[in-house]
Amino acid sequence: MEGAEATRIMIGVNESTIKGYPHASISSRGAFDWALQKIIRSNTSGFKLLFLHVQVPDEDGFDDMDSLYASPEDFKNMKYRDRTRGLHLLEYFVNRCHEIGVACEAWIKKGDPKEVICHEVKRVQPDLLVVGSRGLGPFQRFAYYHEISHADLSCRVFVGTVSEFCQKHAECPVISIKRRADETPQDPVDD
Amino acid sequence: MEGAEATRIMIGVNESTIKGYPHASISSRGAFDWALQKIIRSNTSGFKLLFLHVQVPDEDGFDDMDSLYASPEDFKNMKYRDRTRGLHLLEYFVNRCHEIGVACEAWIKKGDPKEVICHEVKRVQPDLLVVGSRGLGPFQRFAYYHEISHADLSCRVFVGTVSEFCQKHAECPVISIKRRADETPQDPVDD
Repeated sequence: MEGAEATRIMIGVNESTIKGYPHASISSRGAFDWALQKIIRSNTSGFKLLFLHVQVPDEDGFDDMDSLYASPEDFKNMKYRDRTRGLHLLEYFVNRCHEIGVACEAWIKKGDPKEVICHEVKRVQPDLLVVGSRGLGPFQRFAYYHEISHADLSCRVFVGTVSEFCQKHAECPVISIKRRADETPQDPVDD
Repeated sequence: MEGAEATRIMIGVNESTIKGYPHASISSRGAFDWALQKIIRSNTSGFKLLFLHVQVPDEDGFDDMDSLYASPEDFKNMKYRDRTRGLHLLEYFVNRCHEIGVACEAWIKKGDPKEVICHEVKRVQPDLLVVGSRGLGPFQRFAYYHEISHADLSCRVFVGTVSEFCQKHAECPVISIKRRADETPQDPVDD
């Protein structure tokens, strides 16, 4: 199997709800670290990581970017660094890949994370999708979705997590990495 | 990450419904080949494969075996070769690992596959569980489970597949590998 094309692993990453932007969530970092330690290991040339950050649209009038970010220089040279949310988040992952010597690409899309991730899987066709999960129990999840459904009563709310949705609908194998118990914040809904 | 302990991947394997015992199902072989090609690649010393075959109890009075099978010799030397179902199935996977140079272990348990797999994950604590899936659509699955519920009307039937159950309940990350379209038999319930 030497010389075969690299295994392309897509990792969905989002920002921390505790530390705020541009810090990566505990789950995102957990998913990334798990892929490095358990899958890629010392075989850095056998893999390519594809980081997707899905930004939920807000009033800032954020636009999709078609550019790809694959090395620390790409972030230094860009024009709209301060105007575009999400970039610093990707910078963390791209920098770490660069240090370790794993090829990577990173990009941002806006929309509903679960729908966009599945759409991007269809478009990019990775070998594997890795998503972090807070590992919430049924009661915590109920509380979480109950809150959302209050904000928009006219919507039918998907009762489940982004990772569960992707496991059902993404057109590639999916691994959901649960957050480690010793990294769970006081309020487990935080990340 | 050199010198770290090998990543232990458990793979649930079962027999073919078409070719009959001792042939491995298309899904099982698919899950194994996927792990070799996409995860292990050329890094054979970085991984250990753990093959679990769960035998559904029947009238043959089959007993659990505590022995582990880790090399082709283990199968030649055993006493009860012909009396114990499932062994030839494991032999296929152990032989292939031996050829490729990946360390492995294999064992058999009896019971309800989805329950036993989750129980064995708890006991053995692999880094990752890989299960094959026939990739049946909702209608095909309904037909499948409907049939089972006729045979035992007093049972509440789990509506879903072994891989879906494991993704929800196994205490480790789980990858479900769908059978390739070009390998799907005429009746997709077959495997």
